[in-house]
Amino acid sequence: MVTALPLPPGTLSAENQAYFEKCQEKLGFIPNVLLAYAHDDAKLTAFATLYNDLMLAPSGLSKLEREMIAVAVSSVNRCYYCLTAHGAAVRQLSGDPVLGELMAMNYRAANLSVRHRAMLDFAVKLTETPHLVGESDRNALTAAGFGPRDLWDIAAVASFFNMSNRMASAVDMRPNPQYHAQAR
Amino acid sequence: MVTALPLPPGTLSAENQAYFEKCQEKLGFIPNVLLAYAHDDAKLTAFATLYNDLMLAPSGLSKLEREMIAVAVSSVNRCYYCLTAHGAAVRQLSGDPVLGELMAMNYRAANLSVRHRAMLDFAVKLTETPHLVGESDRNALTAAGFGPRDLWDIAAVASFFNMSNRMASAVDMRPNPQYHAQAR
Amino acid sequence: MVTALPLPPGTLSAENQAYFEKCQEKLGFIPNVLLAYAHDDAKLTAFATLYNDLMLAPSGLSKLEREMIAVAVSSVNRCYYCLTAHGAAVRQLSGDPVLGELMAMNYRAANLSVRHRAMLDFAVKLTETPHLVGESDRNALTAAGFGPRDLWDIAAVASFFNMSNRMASAVDMRPNPQYHAQAR
Amino acid sequence: MVTALPLPPGTLSAENQAYFEKCQEKLGFIPNVLLAYAHDDAKLTAFATLYNDLMLAPSGLSKLEREMIAVAVSSVNRCYYCLTAHGAAVRQLSGDPVLGELMAMNYRAANLSVRHRAMLDFAVKLTETPHLVGESDRNALTAAGFGPRDLWDIAAVASFFNMSNRMASAVDMRPNPQYHAQAR
Amino acid sequence: MVTALPLPPGTLSAENQAYFEKCQEKLGFIPNVLLAYAHDDAKLTAFATLYNDLMLAPSGLSKLEREMIAVAVSSVNRCYYCLTAHGAAVRQLSGDPVLGELMAMNYRAANLSVRHRAMLDFAVKLTETPHLVGESDRNALTAAGFGPRDLWDIAAVASFFNMSNRMASAVDMRPNPQYHAQAR
Amino acid sequence: MVTALPLPPGTLSAENQAYFEKCQEKLGFIPNVLLAYAHDDAKLTAFATLYNDLMLAPSGLSKLEREMIAVAVSSVNRCYYCLTAHGAAVRQLSGDPVLGELMAMNYRAANLSVRHRAMLDFAVKLTETPHLVGESDRNALTAAGFGPRDLWDIAAVASFFNMSNRMASAVDMRPNPQYHAQAR
Repeated sequence: MVTALPLPPGTLSAENQAYFEKCQEKLGFIPNVLLAYAHDDAKLTAFATLYNDLMLAPSGLSKLEREMIAVAVSSVNRCYYCLTAHGAAVRQLSGDPVLGELMAMNYRAANLSVRHRAMLDFAVKLTETPHLVGESDRNALTAAGFGPRDLWDIAAVASFFNMSNRMASAVDMRPNPQYHAQAR
Repeated sequence: MVTALPLPPGTLSAENQAYFEKCQEKLGFIPNVLLAYAHDDAKLTAFATLYNDLMLAPSGLSKLEREMIAVAVSSVNRCYYCLTAHGAAVRQLSGDPVLGELMAMNYRAANLSVRHRAMLDFAVKLTETPHLVGESDRNALTAAGFGPRDLWDIAAVASFFNMSNRMASAVDMRPNPQYHAQAR
Repeated sequence: MVTALPLPPGTLSAENQAYFEKCQEKLGFIPNVLLAYAHDDAKLTAFATLYNDLMLAPSGLSKLEREMIAVAVSSVNRCYYCLTAHGAAVRQLSGDPVLGELMAMNYRAANLSVRHRAMLDFAVKLTETPHLVGESDRNALTAAGFGPRDLWDIAAVASFFNMSNRMASAVDMRPNPQYHAQAR
Repeated sequence: MVTALPLPPGTLSAENQAYFEKCQEKLGFIPNVLLAYAHDDAKLTAFATLYNDLMLAPSGLSKLEREMIAVAVSSVNRCYYCLTAHGAAVRQLSGDPVLGELMAMNYRAANLSVRHRAMLDFAVKLTETPHLVGESDRNALTAAGFGPRDLWDIAAVASFFNMSNRMASAVDMRPNPQYHAQAR
Repeated sequence: MVTALPLPPGTLSAENQAYFEKCQEKLGFIPNVLLAYAHDDAKLTAFATLYNDLMLAPSGLSKLEREMIAVAVSSVNRCYYCLTAHGAAVRQLSGDPVLGELMAMNYRAANLSVRHRAMLDFAVKLTETPHLVGESDRNALTAAGFGPRDLWDIAAVASFFNMSNRMASAVDMRPNPQYHAQAR
Repeated sequence: MVTALPLPPGTLSAENQAYFEKCQEKLGFIPNVLLAYAHDDAKLTAFATLYNDLMLAPSGLSKLEREMIAVAVSSVNRCYYCLTAHGAAVRQLSGDPVLGELMAMNYRAANLSVRHRAMLDFAVKLTETPHLVGESDRNALTAAGFGPRDLWDIAAVASFFNMSNRMASAVDMRPNPQYHAQAR
């Protein structure tokens, strides 16, 4: 079972079928989050479009940086699915298995650059106490060298995983077992 | 200013231009959340597609129920933008201005049906402590008459506003002033 | 029902009868908080004396400022009665309906003067973590131009609503419906 | 210094002067909370009237029970003044010094009657999370034998100390040294 | 009963028997924490060895300072056993009954030296949010005059009572009644 | 560096030297926690004696169960050192790498036996809110089949890691790199 909900798979569009085939080919499996959304083709498309834009489109943040935010946010929310899948991504993109562990356990224990510490401090404050985020928090990012579009992207990735973590917890999404051993 | 970030408007696709015109026509204004995303056409499309599917597509939850979840979640996160815009939506869809206030202030003070109380209890627990949500929480929704697809939709709306609340706080999104007086 | 408690109205003193008549005359209704206390004349007198001194007596704080504190504190405690009644007061005294909404939703999203931000930061910290309030918090008020008596008054209003919010929640006090539409 | 605020004593009414003399006579000192309010005769009167009605007027709660609530609430708020003054009162009224310590440290460690446990559970929940107090909490008091007026009184005493604890912390009120050794 | 667990006393080594006799002789009683561990001689030895090294061995911290940390930590964790036993120790070692009360109620209300305030701020932060303790917290201790070994000792005492407080709560350990009246 | 504190290694007793040699032989390295304590031979002995009794002595809890508690507690406290070292132990003792991840990320997402769920629920409640642990929590362990001595052992292991997690955070203890790849 991919989730705790007995939702039968929907009929996928040709595009989503091709997307699943590409996943199978490149990763060796289809990420369970996509199978979870596959009960409804429109919802799968909306989710995947947003996800791919955030994590893969050009940005002042590297793909690794976006994955670091994903894992640090998922650590606050203790999301088993996202910690597993995106922890693997941090290990893979960084070539540094320990960095993946640090993001999942406590990013404050990592020996981070000023840029990365500021980025994660913002992401985690936005996760824990969004109502307290204000001008001084944005200024701290600017002081660490981030421009307005970078700030948007940090906020957008952190916010997305606050959605995705909750979706995964709500339906008890199970990560593909392959992630655990990747890039150790 | 729509947000605190000086991001110049991007070039919109014909579809997004048409969407903005339709907003102007139907609402008398373009919701600032859309203008906030308009610095990047792909991001605007991804956001609006997800939003419209969640809030407007066919579902076992009525549009009002989805807006009630939106406001109760935004109340936990104290999101000024979403409380203003979606509080107006609850007032409008319900024809009951007091219900909008109750969702924004403390849904527990409202005299709700068993169905609505269960729905909001789940959405708020998922917001506050996603790591504690489990089988017994899903069972409580089933006991209140919700099916698996309804459960998905409750989770998806609650999760979405946990994203959107944070995005709004991160960039200091300002609600259109028109919302305040609507449906009082 | 004014509260959830079936307490029969007590016999009111002439003074309290006159007070109720004055309310009816000036406001068009008797605030339910007063009816809630009316089961015991001495308790009504004690409550009303304290309330009227705090909110109406001469002070370095304007009446609007005292109402702003009332609403910001009630927002932390999510008190439906006080948010409704005193939100209306902020709208009325300021002539600015949006200010009332901001106090109820998240005062940090308001564009406040240094004076008002310091005043509300103190009131909210005193509400959330009274055991952490100390010299540096008092100094911040002094730096914002408040004198010792102003500090007393800020503390007294914030403290009072920490009492009143809890009383309202404990007995499920219902606000008079008239407040909702006032000064929108 | 009685508080951290340099507020000169006001002119007291004959009644308040008599009240102070009675304190001196009966207790051997004037409680500092009264001296703290003495910068303004009207505020002193309002405070003392409310306090004396709550703690001394006829009620279904004994004076000891009201003091137990005072201390358990003050323990949550970590109020040095109230824990000291009302801890002494619990020791004195109960003739049980250990009970005073238990109320100040953790009432859950005390071997309480069902009545007292229910009373303090309600008072502490109202202190910590007033927005969560509802019908089931009131029903728990009813099941423990409390009537509607008792419920009002439990709520009123707990709410009052949520005010008084914050006032004491805000102005750094210092307890009279005599309390410490009383009834040990 | 010393704890809520019906664990029969174990056979004590000659050393532990001598230790108990020494306690009886010097204190007039055997501290219940030792009787609680006495169901297993090896566990008693391990506990007492660690405890005595921490609290009695040579250190840059005085014995009183170590007891102040013990009580401030136990106050956060609301541990009835440790507040009672170590509150008595603070009163005794300091000759200042009020200091014992302040540590148990709210150390921030005490008029502490810079050294003691820094020491307790560190101990309490380590208790409440260990995952947030970092370089700046260690630097604050250094700035207050503590060396690396002092820092170890502050951390070790605070950490120990985070163990001991939980053990006492888990098994409902009851303090010896003698502590209550000591050094008042 | 093993920790952030520049504490020179102390002179070790013959026993502790032998212990270190045994570690080197059996594990291929000396756990950094032992090197961290090695600045003081008596402290090293006290720590190691307590640790070895808790984790290795005969008990109704298996060694794996004790390590599961260690990791679940360390996850609450976000302790990088203990999550790394004891996460490896869970993977090794269980032969189930995924179980190690689940304990570190969110034990509630694991498909646990009633016994293990009860054991970890108790350990985590004792970690997060020790002041709320009481008779009903002990009864839940009894209902899951644990005897009084098992209850002691669950409490003792959970309590110990609340000490050890804080010590590691306070001095920034770094785990040996070998743990990361073990038993993946």
